[in-house]
Amino acid sequence: MSTLIDWPVPDPVLPPSVDPALADAAVAASRAYARARLAHTRAELADEVAEGADGTPTMLVDRLVEDAIAETAERHRVNLLSEEAGFVDRGSAVTLVVDPMDGSANAAAGVPLCCFGGVLAVDGRATEALTTWLDTGRAWHAVAGEPTPYRTTGRAAAAGASVSLLRPKPGSRDPWWRVATQAGRVRILASTVLESALVAEGAIDAFCDPGSDTHRIVDLATALVTVPAAGGAVLDALGRPLELDPDLTRRWSGVVAASRPLADELAALIAG
Amino acid sequence: MSTLIDWPVPDPVLPPSVDPALADAAVAASRAYARARLAHTRAELADEVAEGADGTPTMLVDRLVEDAIAETAERHRVNLLSEEAGFVDRGSAVTLVVDPMDGSANAAAGVPLCCFGGVLAVDGRATEALTTWLDTGRAWHAVAGEPTPYRTTGRAAAAGASVSLLRPKPGSRDPWWRVATQAGRVRILASTVLESALVAEGAIDAFCDPGSDTHRIVDLATALVTVPAAGGAVLDALGRPLELDPDLTRRWSGVVAASRPLADELAALIAG
Repeated sequence: MSTLIDWPVPDPVLPPSVDPALADAAVAASRAYARARLAHTRAELADEVAEGADGTPTMLVDRLVEDAIAETAERHRVNLLSEEAGFVDRGSAVTLVVDPMDGSANAAAGVPLCCFGGVLAVDGRATEALTTWLDTGRAWHAVAGEPTPYRTTGRAAAAGASVSLLRPKPGSRDPWWRVATQAGRVRILASTVLESALVAEGAIDAFCDPGSDTHRIVDLATALVTVPAAGGAVLDALGRPLELDPDLTRRWSGVVAASRPLADELAALIAG
Repeated sequence: MSTLIDWPVPDPVLPPSVDPALADAAVAASRAYARARLAHTRAELADEVAEGADGTPTMLVDRLVEDAIAETAERHRVNLLSEEAGFVDRGSAVTLVVDPMDGSANAAAGVPLCCFGGVLAVDGRATEALTTWLDTGRAWHAVAGEPTPYRTTGRAAAAGASVSLLRPKPGSRDPWWRVATQAGRVRILASTVLESALVAEGAIDAFCDPGSDTHRIVDLATALVTVPAAGGAVLDALGRPLELDPDLTRRWSGVVAASRPLADELAALIAG
């Protein structure tokens, strides 16, 4: 039996300094998800309606939220780089790089851990990031090169650290286990954007994809701005450069950590 | 660096039919956690201040919340069975069985997944359960023998199911892996009470301790009322009876599932 998700989705609580296009996109995401929950059961939200520009299936909930964000980008006359749509070039210097619905499986099932993640890029350079946790309206905002009010834990060593992981997948079981064994606490929240925000605010020490190459740049874009601004580091476990590339078929294994030494140690553990 | 957790804790939103002692205990828990977050950094909240009646360390955040609940139980002149205090017998027919702070590690770190779980027992029989998610005020209420407004998914088979697990521990790695391999999606939210509520409302198919014998009866008490009322099943992976026993040194490996066949299959997977 599939039921409606019986909880409201509030508007995000945003600081006044957020760029208007980014802020409008976040509000549009929350409202679209709120409407989607009222109109569709969990099974309907999870229904795969298309294959996205990133080569993975698009659920109904992804499409409904992305469509609302795309309208916002059009209204603000900015380019859009997003999961399903790919790159929509409006000839603007400004591009919204978004993960409309991070944690789609959570969002469709009613596990209350899903996020909007958006980055404002000017001439290809990320200048500002906004993460909103759709179920609660909590927001994390960061501007490249400026300190944030929240800070990472600063932890430098993996032994005993509190580490979130992507779920184990067939190709990444050994490195998954190496990281889990070294860490003191392990969680799997199934939302990269939320787990990256938790690293930024010092709730967990690190988050990583232990080598399954699941991450697209839209999954990691907010972390690239937010986590360094809070004192941490973001890198690819296999040393590939993280780039705001419109080619969404590219994949990475992101390591998001409270410090550069911890990021390096986790990457070494994953590489084995 | 350890910081304050910079988010408010709302009062829980409770249905009017909740027993007054249980409702007051839940509100007291939320307010005590709110005060604790304002007054103490994450490191201070995690400080181990004592060994509880259950034989595990009590963090400061556990004590602050339990103390507030204990005052409530005293005011209502009911017995209390709780993590740190153990059994406080006031000669009443009514006992509050509580997990004051389920997900203590989350609560102290600021991972926003911690709960109050309380059961009202009359002459040793559980009659009513209340779960509140402290970070959001969401509540799940159930009365023994009466259907709830929310329902489990009803799923009967483990293959491809969405299963939450306790984190892997040295003694339970093989069964952890057997369950994770069989399941379609795996999460570790580190809050038994919340994960049980998510089974009850149909957001995930099951939650289990894969044989590490971590669960005390206070961890599973709300599930014992809430999940069967919503159509699911709760059992111990090794077949031991689940009893509201004042001896908190007893341990179980709880299996909380959307249906009895799924609970049985997961228990068999864990037993190996």
